[in-house]
Amino acid sequence: MEKLFDKWIAVDWGTTSFRAYLIENEEVLFSIKTDDGMKFVQNNNFEETLVKSIEPWLDNKYKIEVFASGMVGSKQGWIEAPYQKTPCNLNNIEFISPTVKDNRFSLKIFSGISQRNIPDVMRGEETQIAGFLYDNSNFNGSICLPGTHSKWVKIENGNIINFKTFMTGELFEIISKNSVLIHSVTSDKILKNEFIKAVDEIFKKPEVFGNVLFQLRADDLLNSRGSEIYKSKLSGYLLGLELLGSLGFWEKKDIVLIGKADLLELYEYILHSKVNSIKSILSRDMVLKGLKNFKNKLS
Amino acid sequence: MEKLFDKWIAVDWGTTSFRAYLIENEEVLFSIKTDDGMKFVQNNNFEETLVKSIEPWLDNKYKIEVFASGMVGSKQGWIEAPYQKTPCNLNNIEFISPTVKDNRFSLKIFSGISQRNIPDVMRGEETQIAGFLYDNSNFNGSICLPGTHSKWVKIENGNIINFKTFMTGELFEIISKNSVLIHSVTSDKILKNEFIKAVDEIFKKPEVFGNVLFQLRADDLLNSRGSEIYKSKLSGYLLGLELLGSLGFWEKKDIVLIGKADLLELYEYILHSKVNSIKSILSRDMVLKGLKNFKNKLS
Repeated sequence: MEKLFDKWIAVDWGTTSFRAYLIENEEVLFSIKTDDGMKFVQNNNFEETLVKSIEPWLDNKYKIEVFASGMVGSKQGWIEAPYQKTPCNLNNIEFISPTVKDNRFSLKIFSGISQRNIPDVMRGEETQIAGFLYDNSNFNGSICLPGTHSKWVKIENGNIINFKTFMTGELFEIISKNSVLIHSVTSDKILKNEFIKAVDEIFKKPEVFGNVLFQLRADDLLNSRGSEIYKSKLSGYLLGLELLGSLGFWEKKDIVLIGKADLLELYEYILHSKVNSIKSILSRDMVLKGLKNFKNKLS
Repeated sequence: MEKLFDKWIAVDWGTTSFRAYLIENEEVLFSIKTDDGMKFVQNNNFEETLVKSIEPWLDNKYKIEVFASGMVGSKQGWIEAPYQKTPCNLNNIEFISPTVKDNRFSLKIFSGISQRNIPDVMRGEETQIAGFLYDNSNFNGSICLPGTHSKWVKIENGNIINFKTFMTGELFEIISKNSVLIHSVTSDKILKNEFIKAVDEIFKKPEVFGNVLFQLRADDLLNSRGSEIYKSKLSGYLLGLELLGSLGFWEKKDIVLIGKADLLELYEYILHSKVNSIKSILSRDMVLKGLKNFKNKLS
């Protein structure tokens, strides 16, 4: 079978979700999103899971190329795509090709990136970064990807120089859901003034983190001022701690934020006056662009 | 019915456990421990739950006095024993007497303590502190009660001047059980050298807390050095953060630790060279002594 046509498939396969795109001449013809995240795949049925979603896009005439990134390439995923070490040039990202039974497609899973001196890892974020660099290949500065495991990444000439991951989003999640604060932070609303006060507080004294958390509970017991206040402060304490710990990445620097709208807003709100320049980009399409970028560098 | 005899009952009623002691002339005649913690009591059946445990000690001839403290006096408990505010003299601790149907006993539940300027609360710990002061009434200095919600308490002339609670134990628990670190910190062993390195690290840069947590996971993925290392470091990061945040309570001060043996050992290990004097006391019998102390002050 020959590769005569310009169609390909991009797959963004994370821990909890799966997304695939059929692309022709830079355009997305079809896309599909499912809950078949890596961790829900039973008995290593990765190929079956993939084919179930992309079956309508396969035919027996032309073998189509599938490019994937994310946790599907982790030890617990389909096959381990070894980490590439920092400093790492995103123009030479490596991949691994698992053997597939179905001969209507071939598959390349791109590597994640690891840092050895100060242990750190990413898998999926490098593709989002490549997505940003697809349109901004000359960017030098820091990229932040807020989320469960927030990442701050130093970029120079298309290279990931170093990076630092913070468990910010995960701490927010488990403190909200599994600690004594559970009944005090039920609101989903963030009050900017309470949020910024909490950021300032932790900027001044990061070591009181464990105490200010308990203060939220105590204040609720004594004064019941409403869960939106406590939620806003919890958010501020966690974000403040991350920003103080990542100061070298953003202070007076050019920075780019890639993430979801609500988080971008909070990060921008604190950082805009403290950085040289700031740009916010929704993460939604970055993986797709990043896979395009990786694919182009291969050909 | 007259109160002709010297028997009384002490009850230590916490969130998850229940303990009662029958006492005569300063001696414990009998004791009972059950899992009837405050949060497991159904439909407000507090009296039934209490009587079930102390029934053998009740008789129709003499009404016996029962003295209780702990979360049984919280809003979610039997009846709310209002907080006493700091500064608070432990010689004048207040109580509330819920009406009981059974006329073989009367009940006093002692208050917890609250701090208003910097919101904080305790319920149960004040009794342990009174237990220590029972034998050390002239103590001036700081008392630390490590645990789920670690407390640092400033004591002067039998008064609780102020205090500071840290969510140290609870953070340890939820990070170990509910975060991405779950598979990296399975060991129960604490390696002192890794523990102390982590304390030093966080003493120098408390703001990297969210990052050093993720480093444990990354190091495990990259180097698999064994979960006892990661558990020891997690413990050191959390304890280090608390100690840096409570510095004013212990630096060059006389301090007393009241808690369980394993925690006492860790706190002593870090603090012994940095404080004026240190004394460690097992928490086990402190509530009983504290209730004796409160009772004596009433009569």
